[in-house]
Amino acid sequence: MAGVKDFGLSDKGVTRLAYTDLDFAAQAWLLEQVKDLNLTVTEDAVGNTFLRRPGIDNSLPPIAMGSHLDTVIQAGAYDGIVGVVGALEALYMLRDEKLTAPVEIIIFKAEESSRFGYATMGSKLMTGSATPEQLSQGTKKNDKSFVEVLRENGYNPDNYAEAIKKPGYYKCFLEIHIEQGKVLDETGEQIGIVHNIAAPTRFKIIVDGMADHSGATPMGFRKDALVAGAKLILAVQKAAEEEASKGTVATVGVVDVEPSSINVVPGKVTLWVDLRGVDNASIAKALDKIQHAMANVVDSDKVIVSQEMLTADKPVALSDDLAYEFAKICEEMGVKYRHMNSGAGHDAMHMVKLAPTSMLFIPCKEGISHNPAEYAKLEDICVGVEVLAKMVKKIAQ
Amino acid sequence: MAGVKDFGLSDKGVTRLAYTDLDFAAQAWLLEQVKDLNLTVTEDAVGNTFLRRPGIDNSLPPIAMGSHLDTVIQAGAYDGIVGVVGALEALYMLRDEKLTAPVEIIIFKAEESSRFGYATMGSKLMTGSATPEQLSQGTKKNDKSFVEVLRENGYNPDNYAEAIKKPGYYKCFLEIHIEQGKVLDETGEQIGIVHNIAAPTRFKIIVDGMADHSGATPMGFRKDALVAGAKLILAVQKAAEEEASKGTVATVGVVDVEPSSINVVPGKVTLWVDLRGVDNASIAKALDKIQHAMANVVDSDKVIVSQEMLTADKPVALSDDLAYEFAKICEEMGVKYRHMNSGAGHDAMHMVKLAPTSMLFIPCKEGISHNPAEYAKLEDICVGVEVLAKMVKKIAQ
Repeated sequence: MAGVKDFGLSDKGVTRLAYTDLDFAAQAWLLEQVKDLNLTVTEDAVGNTFLRRPGIDNSLPPIAMGSHLDTVIQAGAYDGIVGVVGALEALYMLRDEKLTAPVEIIIFKAEESSRFGYATMGSKLMTGSATPEQLSQGTKKNDKSFVEVLRENGYNPDNYAEAIKKPGYYKCFLEIHIEQGKVLDETGEQIGIVHNIAAPTRFKIIVDGMADHSGATPMGFRKDALVAGAKLILAVQKAAEEEASKGTVATVGVVDVEPSSINVVPGKVTLWVDLRGVDNASIAKALDKIQHAMANVVDSDKVIVSQEMLTADKPVALSDDLAYEFAKICEEMGVKYRHMNSGAGHDAMHMVKLAPTSMLFIPCKEGISHNPAEYAKLEDICVGVEVLAKMVKKIAQ
Repeated sequence: MAGVKDFGLSDKGVTRLAYTDLDFAAQAWLLEQVKDLNLTVTEDAVGNTFLRRPGIDNSLPPIAMGSHLDTVIQAGAYDGIVGVVGALEALYMLRDEKLTAPVEIIIFKAEESSRFGYATMGSKLMTGSATPEQLSQGTKKNDKSFVEVLRENGYNPDNYAEAIKKPGYYKCFLEIHIEQGKVLDETGEQIGIVHNIAAPTRFKIIVDGMADHSGATPMGFRKDALVAGAKLILAVQKAAEEEASKGTVATVGVVDVEPSSINVVPGKVTLWVDLRGVDNASIAKALDKIQHAMANVVDSDKVIVSQEMLTADKPVALSDDLAYEFAKICEEMGVKYRHMNSGAGHDAMHMVKLAPTSMLFIPCKEGISHNPAEYAKLEDICVGVEVLAKMVKKIAQ
């Protein structure tokens, strides 16, 4: 069956990076499929898209739902997409209902950090949490910056402030998403109700050594940036392992080696680190241990090590009121659910600035995500959509 | 002053990869500068170039000199170039001499492995030591293969055998080259006479783990290919350090991470390893230790590790007769010299198949090479060229 997943699909999964032609084409295709919903489509100054269903009283703040259509490199077909398609499906379920408040589906741009080094860019911009200029700092070697890409696609980055929405603009924000973890898959519960979102602290570690001929430079004379870098990769792993009981995790996902030649001792290495948790003290402790290791390799490996902060977000608490409302709906429906936290970041964590916000998790197989093997059962997604639709109906009446 | 170095020069040094437009342009420019030598220029089926000065008896096998014009990424201005320009300079010194034998300067193609993953490709092809097909196995992600590049530049890879020269074709082969090590710079000797060339054993280590969401995958549930890869980078370093007294060295120069995204646990990592020495037993011992470490991470990190051999050359002995002839010339000139080995590989190591071969090393500052800071004193190069010219005259008379 045709789907959003077809845009960027290869034998290595789905790759549909933000603001690429594939990203725009996927959205255009999806909007074409739901024309019969007669939604009013608007776009803000940075590319976030809004699909509005009018209410009886359009002076009321709209109930918002939504998620994103962009993916990481070599992704699956569910992350983000379930939240957009699920929200549309909820509108189909509510088609014959008379709702007092308007409802709006938001398709956030660039939720994944795979292209620009920053996550949840669309919701950051919409909530005034960052400027396009700030989101251009993490540009990878040989890549275009976010500001350049905005211009290239007909958006004027100077007008970014026009995209900022004020607190109270929405009545609430509701996001449905696959868990991207193993908890629901293992416990057999069909719904996760999210109370806190772990936020990523992201930084680059830059190791400067000395590029030398790999054959003619004796071991004792080297300043190998990659050997020092390898020690730091293991230090990041160890720091997170020691904080694992607090739910803290850390990952080196990208390694840039210069000059990257088999016959040259690496002269410079950049590690991209992602550190997360729901416990601020634990995150700080892990960061401290990593920085301690950075100081150690300066001594042991005669290299220069520096750090460049990309983001240092705080864990975010969602609305307990909405969470207990969701729980009530699940109970009425006889659906097994669980109160839980989110290890992954989501657009919802910025939307708390605008309105009470809540999230529903759908189980995904073995917790696999950001991987072509990502999978969620259609029946689980349908249950989530039904819970979502009931919630919208309840609030919008 | 204009020079070969200008082709590919930026603020990050010289980058003139083999078979690029820059590579061809540098050679064309150089040939233009030496037109007054009236050399006959020919090219073989794979792009090696031959500059011939006729002798009195052209039925005699020519005396060959030469080196290469291609560079690594972010290189200096001396590696290879000194051997080509030095040989031309020697011909200027011998301009008024009547020489019985013809003399030929060879400009070898693709001595550096930076583009195709294999070194000394031109001399390998010329001596029948490899086929274009074999030299296309190491193609890096997103790069064109060697066979494709040959075709693109008007060479027919199917005709590669036409480039192969037979043993006895040359009288001898002489190469002058910067040392790319620190020995001569530290001892103050002006000439190194090379007896053995360490040969690289090169292989890829491929680590297959599991790509997962970096936020939602607890530490204990990961199969992080990069964490396992970091352990192997350190194991390669340790194996070489333990064999350092035998002159063995090992380097991981390239790391490919998939999918290479800050919010995804690395699913696959490829390490490109270069292992070298002049002692076969020591090289084998280091390789054994690396393979032992590969088996260990399979257990400890729950990843799959495989190895792919790229080259496994044996150390090569050059001509002792020519070496002692060089020593005699140095003594006659009052030049301080040293008998030594080469840690780096050179085209000379394949030319031993065709003719007695010898190499001269010129000191280079702090042993720095494959780096923009590479530097050799003009006076040292001139001494080397004079020794070379005297040798050619002696043999060609």
